[in-house]
Amino acid sequence: MNFDLQFGAHVAEALKNNTPIVALETTVVTHGMAYPSNLETALTMENAVKEAGACPATLGIVDGQVTVGLTEEQLKDFATSERGSIAKCSRRDFAPLLGKNQSGSLTVAGTMIVAAAAKIDIFATGGIGGVHRGHPFDVSADLTELGKTPVAVVCAGAKSILDLPLTLEVLETQGVPIVGYQTKNLPAFYTRDSGLALPHSVDNIAEAAATYTAWRDLGADSGLLFTNPVPEADALSNDEMETIIDKAIAEADANNIKGAAVTPFVLGKVVELSEGRSLKANIALLINNAKLAGEIAVAAKR
Amino acid sequence: MNFDLQFGAHVAEALKNNTPIVALETTVVTHGMAYPSNLETALTMENAVKEAGACPATLGIVDGQVTVGLTEEQLKDFATSERGSIAKCSRRDFAPLLGKNQSGSLTVAGTMIVAAAAKIDIFATGGIGGVHRGHPFDVSADLTELGKTPVAVVCAGAKSILDLPLTLEVLETQGVPIVGYQTKNLPAFYTRDSGLALPHSVDNIAEAAATYTAWRDLGADSGLLFTNPVPEADALSNDEMETIIDKAIAEADANNIKGAAVTPFVLGKVVELSEGRSLKANIALLINNAKLAGEIAVAAKR
Amino acid sequence: MNFDLQFGAHVAEALKNNTPIVALETTVVTHGMAYPSNLETALTMENAVKEAGACPATLGIVDGQVTVGLTEEQLKDFATSERGSIAKCSRRDFAPLLGKNQSGSLTVAGTMIVAAAAKIDIFATGGIGGVHRGHPFDVSADLTELGKTPVAVVCAGAKSILDLPLTLEVLETQGVPIVGYQTKNLPAFYTRDSGLALPHSVDNIAEAAATYTAWRDLGADSGLLFTNPVPEADALSNDEMETIIDKAIAEADANNIKGAAVTPFVLGKVVELSEGRSLKANIALLINNAKLAGEIAVAAKR
Ligand SMILES: [Mn+2]
Ligand SMILES: [Mn+2]
Ligand SMILES: [Mn+2]
Repeated sequence: MNFDLQFGAHVAEALKNNTPIVALETTVVTHGMAYPSNLETALTMENAVKEAGACPATLGIVDGQVTVGLTEEQLKDFATSERGSIAKCSRRDFAPLLGKNQSGSLTVAGTMIVAAAAKIDIFATGGIGGVHRGHPFDVSADLTELGKTPVAVVCAGAKSILDLPLTLEVLETQGVPIVGYQTKNLPAFYTRDSGLALPHSVDNIAEAAATYTAWRDLGADSGLLFTNPVPEADALSNDEMETIIDKAIAEADANNIKGAAVTPFVLGKVVELSEGRSLKANIALLINNAKLAGEIAVAAKR
Repeated sequence: MNFDLQFGAHVAEALKNNTPIVALETTVVTHGMAYPSNLETALTMENAVKEAGACPATLGIVDGQVTVGLTEEQLKDFATSERGSIAKCSRRDFAPLLGKNQSGSLTVAGTMIVAAAAKIDIFATGGIGGVHRGHPFDVSADLTELGKTPVAVVCAGAKSILDLPLTLEVLETQGVPIVGYQTKNLPAFYTRDSGLALPHSVDNIAEAAATYTAWRDLGADSGLLFTNPVPEADALSNDEMETIIDKAIAEADANNIKGAAVTPFVLGKVVELSEGRSLKANIALLINNAKLAGEIAVAAKR
Repeated sequence: MNFDLQFGAHVAEALKNNTPIVALETTVVTHGMAYPSNLETALTMENAVKEAGACPATLGIVDGQVTVGLTEEQLKDFATSERGSIAKCSRRDFAPLLGKNQSGSLTVAGTMIVAAAAKIDIFATGGIGGVHRGHPFDVSADLTELGKTPVAVVCAGAKSILDLPLTLEVLETQGVPIVGYQTKNLPAFYTRDSGLALPHSVDNIAEAAATYTAWRDLGADSGLLFTNPVPEADALSNDEMETIIDKAIAEADANNIKGAAVTPFVLGKVVELSEGRSLKANIALLINNAKLAGEIAVAAKR
């Protein structure tokens, strides 16, 4: 899409200097975590990208202005905004939000679209959306976007509250290359291994950069998904995660939570039932993904 | 697609004068209503567009010639054609029909494709296709077309004989912006409110035009869906509609109607069981949508 | 995609002489049949294309080099490679395979992508992928590729171990034109008639060429599917095929075969239970499709 993009000063300079740029998203800031963890994590992710030698560009819509590289002040505004006051922006939300000059935090799909428009082709996030457990027709727009927008996405898989086998099926149907980073299996966000085999894997940064370069040279019209397991020190085990999710879903049922309200409720319960360890894992994997995206971008610098 | 387009004289003149143009479809003429209601409604829709200050362009394929702006005579030929003699044309049907120089009436998807080729970017219809109730893999090509062809479509939602919750899921997955016109909920064709929340809404023509302009400025590669409830005076209530549909489906079962024959049978029964009030609602919403599309096009004139 | 294509000498000459070119795939060589049937069939298909007056171009990836028109020696290497040593390459596999300079045999989707990059717009194969019976979310990437890549594919339908009604639904949703060649119904690979109606059909080469030309002139952004029934002499009947498939699936269950292992197991059992008649049908339909693709390409020569 042809946005009238506003570039942050650091991103403008990176473009001038041909410094590799890594996009970061803002839904995690406005919807994924509470203040101040959200701001701290966003800034630590930016630092992880910088330490790898790349330039971070956190993307968002500020009062109808699509912005590539929020300033720290803008990030803080997003981080401290009242929950719900800044809308999530996926592909379908751009025109309605921009038509009203509203702000928006970008989902995985939304970030891919703005990154592609800004000619940034790598992006680090926590986890991608997927197919909802028990609701196989509730398929995240992230999956179709990965099938059509040329941005490489570094993630820790998808949350196991989703239907991961069906999520892999949809990605296959959409033709999305999925590459495990130092793993042959799909990671499951809080846990390192879903047990589901991936079609491809790479063992190190050099191999990841070679795949990324091959994809870039193809001028591929689809995304490239790197799945990077949560660091071992902060990972939850599959057993405890399944127990926690089962309990959380049971509580949702008991409280008669329905429809779109289920996921936030369940995720909140997961934090509670894991006594904060899921939050710690979430932060660790976000920073880990920002680092990996920075390292791949730098290794593949043209 | 690169059609060898034939322009009606009124459309050619509108293009020359930079008059906003609103596309109209022909499936409603050949398959949606019987003569003379079909012709009268098509002409009244054209008038509603004109009264708003825009130029109507009813689209169809006449003996292998893709035509932008049928003449009244051509429209009458379509309206009086023997049922089944003019094929419905969706995306998949263009090459086969054109290869045999046949005529075709355009579905929502087909109209979007021809409109886009003719650089017309707004289109009024009755209702879009959707996901079939009880057949969740029977998904109208209208939904995928809305995900990839840049035409704004003004409709009254989708018929409640479809599975409306799944239809919304597919539209979300396809990244289609859906905007309620003076409603926060999806309208359901004959009825004003399906009870299903929409992601966006606008309150008046100015807001609708602003969203349409934002979408146009994005050079979006997907459609924009405005949902406009049937006028109150002619609307059916949800209760009576559900009763009618349940009866119609029961009769289809009792008569052993199967597969593709179910929808036309059920729609026929709906007209019968509603004692013609569904036909009146259908006509009213078509004219209402033509008017709204004309008003948005004129308000957003460049 | 922008491949760094390597052209075989015969294909380079055909391009120079404006000889119509028909693409052929390599998954059938590495995964579809055993040596020496696979090599013999591939060479006989090439001959069938030549006898029709067109130039065959068998496509594959040789050590990271995307090759348009394998030499007989390269074909033999593919045909005699150890099963599993050459990976199947669909849309999602190009970047990972090319990033590691590996070889790959092209699926229907993969062949379409390379053919389109080489400006070859017709391709003959055995059967396309589809929706898996009992696993409606396991949808072959062939179906989405047919929805977005402009290559005409001549096939004998899809194997009846797939869910053929759902496969047709997905093709309709994706907007893929399907044209029966001398049949009004979808062929089912080993058998001539699935009993499922097709939206379009042509009666002879001239009509097929007219549809292909219309599609080409449209600059369509989707494929065109010709379905050509297996020759009568080698066709299996629907009854015996259903009996065989039921037995094969029962044996898979009895042996506790699961997931991705089911299809190859069932196909192997089908060959065994049909006492080789399914292999004979497979070979016959492949050659028949290559011939038809050649004849259409020649008849539509510009
Ligand atoms: Mn959803
Ligand atoms: Mn359908
Ligand atoms: Mn599959």
